[in-house]
Amino acid sequence: MEVENKQIIFKGYIEGPPKETDMEFKVGKKIKLEAPKGSGAFLVKNLYLSCDPYMRGRMRDFHGSYIPPFTPGSVIEGFGVSKVLDSDNPKFKPGDLVSGLTGWEEYSLIYRTEQLRLIEPNDIPLSYYLGLLGMPGFTAYAGFYEVCAPRKGDYIFVSAASGAVGQLVGQLGKLHGCYVVGSAGSSKKVDLLKTKLGFDEAFNYKEEKDLDAALKRYFPEGIDIYFDNVGGDMLDAALLNMRIHGRIAVCGMVSQHSTSNPQGTQNLFSLITKRITMKGFLQSDYLHLYPRFLEDVISLYKQGKIVYIEDMNEGLESAPAAFVGLFAGNNVGKQVIRVAAL
Amino acid sequence: MEVENKQIIFKGYIEGPPKETDMEFKVGKKIKLEAPKGSGAFLVKNLYLSCDPYMRGRMRDFHGSYIPPFTPGSVIEGFGVSKVLDSDNPKFKPGDLVSGLTGWEEYSLIYRTEQLRLIEPNDIPLSYYLGLLGMPGFTAYAGFYEVCAPRKGDYIFVSAASGAVGQLVGQLGKLHGCYVVGSAGSSKKVDLLKTKLGFDEAFNYKEEKDLDAALKRYFPEGIDIYFDNVGGDMLDAALLNMRIHGRIAVCGMVSQHSTSNPQGTQNLFSLITKRITMKGFLQSDYLHLYPRFLEDVISLYKQGKIVYIEDMNEGLESAPAAFVGLFAGNNVGKQVIRVAAL
Repeated sequence: MEVENKQIIFKGYIEGPPKETDMEFKVGKKIKLEAPKGSGAFLVKNLYLSCDPYMRGRMRDFHGSYIPPFTPGSVIEGFGVSKVLDSDNPKFKPGDLVSGLTGWEEYSLIYRTEQLRLIEPNDIPLSYYLGLLGMPGFTAYAGFYEVCAPRKGDYIFVSAASGAVGQLVGQLGKLHGCYVVGSAGSSKKVDLLKTKLGFDEAFNYKEEKDLDAALKRYFPEGIDIYFDNVGGDMLDAALLNMRIHGRIAVCGMVSQHSTSNPQGTQNLFSLITKRITMKGFLQSDYLHLYPRFLEDVISLYKQGKIVYIEDMNEGLESAPAAFVGLFAGNNVGKQVIRVAAL
Repeated sequence: MEVENKQIIFKGYIEGPPKETDMEFKVGKKIKLEAPKGSGAFLVKNLYLSCDPYMRGRMRDFHGSYIPPFTPGSVIEGFGVSKVLDSDNPKFKPGDLVSGLTGWEEYSLIYRTEQLRLIEPNDIPLSYYLGLLGMPGFTAYAGFYEVCAPRKGDYIFVSAASGAVGQLVGQLGKLHGCYVVGSAGSSKKVDLLKTKLGFDEAFNYKEEKDLDAALKRYFPEGIDIYFDNVGGDMLDAALLNMRIHGRIAVCGMVSQHSTSNPQGTQNLFSLITKRITMKGFLQSDYLHLYPRFLEDVISLYKQGKIVYIEDMNEGLESAPAAFVGLFAGNNVGKQVIRVAAL
C-alpha cells in the first residue's frame, strides 16, 4: 500500500533568524508503509514533532559543531514521538511507540534506529516525551543537578524560564529548597511562572530598562546559580550579580548566538572576583543518568509535584511558523506540533 | 633611634593604565625603629617588594572586589620580604624573615600580623618568596592542579607565559607529562620560554595578525587546558580552539579588564558546543594547600627541575616605573624591587 507523505523541506543555509520561507511544505513521493527486508530499519507514523531552538544551529553550513547541519533539499530532522507501523528490526515491532530523531513528515523510514527509544506505556501525555520527558526536560535535569551543584537555600535565577527547559529547572529548584526567580518575555508568561509553575518571583525582561537593577531588586543578596538559556545582555547582568563561588550553567546561548557576529560579553572579570564556575553542557554527555531522570520525573509528575506547559500547534503545515515563532518568543511553554492522532 | 623612611604614596584613584605620576616618592616622617608596647605589632625593614598586576585593581574607588582599594595619600601596600627589627608580638622576633603584605617604604610597622608568614631558613633566594614561592607561584600551583584538572598528555596553552604565574604553570605542565605552548610579547621572552623554561613551543602574539590561526598552528588537535592570564582577544581565540570538555582557568583578566569599558568576549557559544568549564579563581581560596605547595616547589627547585626568572630593579625609587612597566610588558619574568640588602 502506497500513501502520500507530506513533508517540510529545508531549502538552504541561512543567516540571521529563521523565516518561514526557509522551509517548504510539500507532498513528497508516495511511500510504501513497510520497512525493506534486510534493512534493519522500521517505518513510523509521526504523531508529534518538536520545535527546538538548537535546530537553528543546523541551518548553517558549519560542520564543527556537535551535530551536523541539515542537508538542503531534504526533510528537516527533529525530535518526534511516533508509532511503528512496520519493522525489519527485532527491537521494534508494529504498534510500538517511540521517541527520538525522526523527520518533519507524516511517515518516516528510520535507518538510524539507535536514535530512538521505546516509550513504556503509562498515563502521561505522549507529547511530553518531547518536553518534560524528552531532550529539554533531561537538559534541565542534568544541568540542574550535575552542572549547577545546587544546595538547599541557594538563590537561583533562570532565564527563558517558561520555556521547555526553564520551567523544569525552576520547579526542580523549588523542590530542592531553593529561592527561584525567572525571567520571561511577556506578562502572560510571568503570570504562569508565579501562579502555575511555583517560582518565588518572575519578571518581564522586556519591561526592564536596566537588567542589572532588576536582578539587584530580586536578588539583594546575589545569585548562587544562574541557569542561562539566553546569553547576551542577561548573562552580562547576571555576571554582575553573582555571589562568591556562584555557578553559571550555560545552556541555550547557541540559539541567541547562531549569528555570525555574536554580541560580546563584557563582565567576565566577575569570574575572577567572585570565583565563578561557568560551564557549558549538552544533555548528551549525561545519558547514563537518563533512566534515573525518567524515574524521578515521572514519579514527581504523578505525585502532582511538577507540571509542564506545552504550546501545541495542529498539523504538519503549522511547523515552520511555530519554529520561527520560537525566536520571537511567541510560544508559551514547550512548542510541539501534533501531526496525527494515535 | 629615629630614622628617615622613604615611601611611595598612592596619590588618588585613576582611569586606564597606571602612570608613574599616579604615585609619589617622598621622604616620610622620621620613624622610631621599634614596635609600641602593647600593640601586638612588629617593625620590619623591607628588603624586597613585589610589583603585581592585581594592584591596578586597588587603584580605583570600587569596594565590591575581593580586596579593598588603596587609600589616597597613603603608602602603597603590596607583597614584600622583610626582616623583623623589633616586635611586640610573641610569634615574631628580631632577626626573623617574613613575607606577606607590607608597605612600599623602607620600614613598616605591621599591625595586621596575620598577613605575613615566617620564612624558614633555606638556601633559596629570598626574593623568590614574592614569586616562585609567593602569591604568583601559589596561584600557578592552585590554578594548575585544582582548576585545570590536568591529565598526562593534555594540550596546554598559557598566555603571558613568561610572567610571574605563567612560567611556573608551563613548567608544572611539562612535569605532568603535557604538551605546553606559551604566548608572550617579545622575541626575547619567546626565546626564554623555549630555551630556559622548557615549553614545547612559544610564540610572540604581537607578531600574529590572526591569533586563531596561530593557535591552530600550534594546536592542530585543539587545546585541553587554557591558563588565561590576559583575557581579551586571546581568550576569544582560545575559545575557538578548545577541545571537547576543555578547561579554562581564568586568572589574570582583572589586570586587562580594570578599565571601566571592558572589551566584549564574543565566542562564548563555544562553551556549549565544546562543553567547556571556565572558572575564575583566587589563590586565597586554596590556602589549605599552601604547605604542600611550599614543600613540592622547594623540592622541585632544589632538584633543578624548575627554574624561575626574575626582573629585579634596584631601589625603592624604581618601584613606580617598574609597576607601570608591567602593563606595557616591559618586565621579563617576575618584577621585583630590591629595597635594601639583608
